[in-house]
Amino acid sequence: MAHIDLDKKILDKSERFAQENRELLDAHGVFMIDLLASPGAGKTSTIKATINALRESFNIAIIEGDIASNVDAVRIKEMGIPAVQINTGGSCHLEGDMINKALKVLDLENTDLIIIENVGNLVCPTDFYLGEDVKVMILSVPEGDDKPLKYPGIFQAAKAIILNKVDTLPVFDFDMPAFEERILNLNPQAPLFKIAATKENGVDSWSAWLTEQIEAAKAKQA
Amino acid sequence: MAHIDLDKKILDKSERFAQENRELLDAHGVFMIDLLASPGAGKTSTIKATINALRESFNIAIIEGDIASNVDAVRIKEMGIPAVQINTGGSCHLEGDMINKALKVLDLENTDLIIIENVGNLVCPTDFYLGEDVKVMILSVPEGDDKPLKYPGIFQAAKAIILNKVDTLPVFDFDMPAFEERILNLNPQAPLFKIAATKENGVDSWSAWLTEQIEAAKAKQA
Repeated sequence: MAHIDLDKKILDKSERFAQENRELLDAHGVFMIDLLASPGAGKTSTIKATINALRESFNIAIIEGDIASNVDAVRIKEMGIPAVQINTGGSCHLEGDMINKALKVLDLENTDLIIIENVGNLVCPTDFYLGEDVKVMILSVPEGDDKPLKYPGIFQAAKAIILNKVDTLPVFDFDMPAFEERILNLNPQAPLFKIAATKENGVDSWSAWLTEQIEAAKAKQA
Repeated sequence: MAHIDLDKKILDKSERFAQENRELLDAHGVFMIDLLASPGAGKTSTIKATINALRESFNIAIIEGDIASNVDAVRIKEMGIPAVQINTGGSCHLEGDMINKALKVLDLENTDLIIIENVGNLVCPTDFYLGEDVKVMILSVPEGDDKPLKYPGIFQAAKAIILNKVDTLPVFDFDMPAFEERILNLNPQAPLFKIAATKENGVDSWSAWLTEQIEAAKAKQA
């Protein structure tokens, strides 16, 4: 099928830069997360809550991916955190070369953790390795408990899964046991963190897990 | 840039089938909507509410597009409405040839209205003409008022815009005047319908608009 071949070419180019990104990050001891979610699932709010939880422990920088606009980068910069905005034009995901450009703008020597906020999309970003240590995905309660059935790829690619907006569970018909079983079927290793990012609820266990990951990566390198 | 060329090839193939789809629909006097939204914005609920509002007036059929699963087609069939499920495998949008196959399964002679539920995505489906009369998009309140800034293309491609889950406005920080101004800047012609699909609230004006569109198309053909 033509489509598959075409995708492959783009993937190859992206992978080449992703490898270079990985080497850059290793050389400077930087941990990088590729954060994936639907539009409006709360990626920026989760990043902001994570910054608040971890900014005393780590130097953090953010790479913002969007089709258009720089509203998210502005929100992050208001917190005094370095942020690079990538506008993809039309593309529904970030690619290795885009991240490569962003890494060259950031002060990697003084960075411990980079969070990439990928373009809002449960499909396209899943297949693209950007040089990150882990992919993490967010689903929000309003999106519904059936999403693992419809978008299995992203739930399988994630090293950890965040369920956001749990403060709105009372107003949505979200079947938590069914959701948890679907996650377990697709990705039994991934921890599930239930949070309300804008209220900074439940961010502790997510931040603790992330801290462990960062320290394990540093220990492995040393 | 390679990416653009590759996209173009796929678009060309899709357009060829889209033209054939258009001819098929015209030959049978069928109106077709391409319905676009994020995962979990309420496409299926909106379709169900629309079926309930219009099933006495029109013979309706649904084409369900998903990466995987057939949960949505099952929900529609339970209402006694013909539904065809398309699983795209990995692709983040439907293409003309996929719709062509679906149209050949449906009884077009006895159909007035087809609603295509495209894959949940605010980016990829925007550029693909499938032979439809109109594209309609849904945004849901939990996704946030800033989405027109981030995904302008889909807001511009839509002939009408539905804002769903307005019953949850009290629990989200959604700036309605800002949202309405953003819509107006991008697409001043498109009507905005505020609904709560699962509660079947606000569906009247949307259904009335849709009825007008269908009848205008029929009148133009006659």
